[in-house]
Amino acid sequence: MTAYKDLSREELESLKAQLNAVYKEYQGKGLKLNMARGKPSNEQLDLSMPMMDIFDSSADLTAEDGTDCRNYGVLDGIPEAKKLMADMIGVKPENVIVCGGSSLNIMYDMIARAFTHGVLGNTPWSQLEKVKFLCPVPGYDRHFAVTEFFGVEMINIPTYEDGPDMDLIEKLVSSDDSIKGLWCVPKYGNPSGVVYSEEVVKRMAALKPAAPDFRLFWDNAYGIHHLYFDDIQEIPEILSECAKAGNPDMVYEFCSTSKITFPGAGISAIASSDANIASIKSMMNWQIIGHDKINQLRHVRFFGDINGMMEQMKKHADIMRPKFEAVCNILEEELGGLEIGTWSTPKGGYFISFDSMDGCAKAIVAKCKDAGMVLTGAGATYPYKNDPKDSNIRIAPSFPTLEEIKEATRLFALCVKLASVEKLLEA
Amino acid sequence: MTAYKDLSREELESLKAQLNAVYKEYQGKGLKLNMARGKPSNEQLDLSMPMMDIFDSSADLTAEDGTDCRNYGVLDGIPEAKKLMADMIGVKPENVIVCGGSSLNIMYDMIARAFTHGVLGNTPWSQLEKVKFLCPVPGYDRHFAVTEFFGVEMINIPTYEDGPDMDLIEKLVSSDDSIKGLWCVPKYGNPSGVVYSEEVVKRMAALKPAAPDFRLFWDNAYGIHHLYFDDIQEIPEILSECAKAGNPDMVYEFCSTSKITFPGAGISAIASSDANIASIKSMMNWQIIGHDKINQLRHVRFFGDINGMMEQMKKHADIMRPKFEAVCNILEEELGGLEIGTWSTPKGGYFISFDSMDGCAKAIVAKCKDAGMVLTGAGATYPYKNDPKDSNIRIAPSFPTLEEIKEATRLFALCVKLASVEKLLEA
Repeated sequence: MTAYKDLSREELESLKAQLNAVYKEYQGKGLKLNMARGKPSNEQLDLSMPMMDIFDSSADLTAEDGTDCRNYGVLDGIPEAKKLMADMIGVKPENVIVCGGSSLNIMYDMIARAFTHGVLGNTPWSQLEKVKFLCPVPGYDRHFAVTEFFGVEMINIPTYEDGPDMDLIEKLVSSDDSIKGLWCVPKYGNPSGVVYSEEVVKRMAALKPAAPDFRLFWDNAYGIHHLYFDDIQEIPEILSECAKAGNPDMVYEFCSTSKITFPGAGISAIASSDANIASIKSMMNWQIIGHDKINQLRHVRFFGDINGMMEQMKKHADIMRPKFEAVCNILEEELGGLEIGTWSTPKGGYFISFDSMDGCAKAIVAKCKDAGMVLTGAGATYPYKNDPKDSNIRIAPSFPTLEEIKEATRLFALCVKLASVEKLLEA
Repeated sequence: MTAYKDLSREELESLKAQLNAVYKEYQGKGLKLNMARGKPSNEQLDLSMPMMDIFDSSADLTAEDGTDCRNYGVLDGIPEAKKLMADMIGVKPENVIVCGGSSLNIMYDMIARAFTHGVLGNTPWSQLEKVKFLCPVPGYDRHFAVTEFFGVEMINIPTYEDGPDMDLIEKLVSSDDSIKGLWCVPKYGNPSGVVYSEEVVKRMAALKPAAPDFRLFWDNAYGIHHLYFDDIQEIPEILSECAKAGNPDMVYEFCSTSKITFPGAGISAIASSDANIASIKSMMNWQIIGHDKINQLRHVRFFGDINGMMEQMKKHADIMRPKFEAVCNILEEELGGLEIGTWSTPKGGYFISFDSMDGCAKAIVAKCKDAGMVLTGAGATYPYKNDPKDSNIRIAPSFPTLEEIKEATRLFALCVKLASVEKLLEA
């Protein structure tokens, strides 16, 4: 293959005409493809349907400590649910609070309470002139949306193959006490697919923040969402790393079963130090009597323990892996050697991150849309939806069928080519 | 019976000795009674156990609009759940947002967002020097706790047989723009049992608040929790009353199935005007993708519609009514004519409100405790747990068995007598 940049103007014009002809054909097909959101497929959801058999009208809904899960009470989750969620992320159950179906809601609440009441006795953020968060990019749009909603100034941090730019983070965090947080997806990042290296995790844990209320918002959303169970990626456990580094209270970790059982109808958790957990509970106490314990018990009874959950994850991987491989293979087939895009080949998680030539991402997404294929909006992976290079696109291969994914990826590759040719012709 | 106030000192001393002897016997019994919290009894929870049969592993979890309840999406609830909750309170489904298991959490969120982002474009409350709420007393401790947590100044409003003191409310609300809210339990009040009269509801709806962001926090927690289905208490529907009075946006209404199905594992809702609902959704959008739709669908399938829910409420009433009547009958039997206490005889809800002689409530609760019976702390029904007269006690007869309730009420009456005698002897 000849790299597009090495093509003459005439060759580009001719290529553009060819590509446009194929594109017109796609437009005529009336396609309805969607690779926008990281939703499990129906086949994956079916894996959890036996959970609906777990209880019947004669079931005993008593937790192991004697709590009747049908009635009021238990702010931080039943013991067996705390254990299950703790095992998901390798922490102690006493450092876990189990909540409702949405870990995003926990993150929102943590930031909302930091604004209204402050973090561990520090000044509420609403009383500060400026609050800043560091945002490794590309990142998760809903993270950035929460901090944007609260008027937080977000600072882009580049992401490399081993995690975010730690030199820059260390410099900024230690010198600016208005920096209060750092959004992290440490494993199989959304959308980068990046797994933080041991060194990055340890440097994170050893940060010397200027702000005493600086926190890592450690969204371990994909901690066990491996695609290759013979090549599992592991990272050091962040709570104990922070403790070892003398920063026991510096991290809030989040996880959920949204992409293990049912999105929005699973259970979620926050893990943190003893002091943080005590503080969070003392504040949650004003907000809610307790989250849905029946659903907590249903999850525990369904999985038995973390081993049962890992068996379920293998089944998820068997469904997801061919889809990811199809995307990567077709991208390689269609775009390899053209030097008009690079992409991640993740070993887990929910996304493939694609980087086009600068200034092409919006055009690619628009072209896909005009041919019946929805992608996450270009820019969505950056704070304020502003990708300065207009190059990153998040591909979510989980929900469509394998056949749809193949078609969608070919269409996507076509749109990449077309947008790239047009860009080169503009020059 | 001779009223205690008419007894001589000698008679009181002799009575005290007799009562103390009986009290000592109670103390020897090793009782473990609890009339503290408004929890449904096991027998009531059993009514909803067939809900556990609603779904099995072959169930179709598709909502009527085609939404797969197992996956992400739907911020405001599936249509059939909106309809069910709307019918509970007599509003339109489009004015309802269905949330998770806890209406308290919705109230908390409404206040939290008012502090961080303001109400319908008004200044966020966190930027105001002073925010005040009017609090009809006696009232619900968890309402007062939320506003206390946010540093709101709470002002006591007396409650009469037809509702709160409207003259006082009208005067305060119209003259002080720092008054931003009014906590209401309009039907079968907690703990008063009071049902707002039509006139009170209409005067509420027609308030002329000085603050444009003043809101009624209308906690319709017991709207269908009748004890006597042949004597149902109805009140005007507040959303339409507010609209008629030219205050369409002045009310947030809350309800839940916590005391219909399973506390904390039911579904809850907020109802409000079109403008408020749009604003709430635009803010919720940053917080959560959607609440547990499987549980919403489970509830709808279990009840069918509001008629099915009302059938369930009749069964609850059949369990609750004898307990309430036992308490009231024993109080009458034990305390009638003694002029040392008055109590409500509610037609619905979860509580009986008892008013002792001034300055006796704490002593009564303490005496009960020393004989093995837990009551809600004296003062809990007032903001800052401060009952200026030290006279109100909330009795929750729902959870214990009928036999336990009878014993508990006799013990309670004994403690009332003893504390009253001691008080009179102090004089």
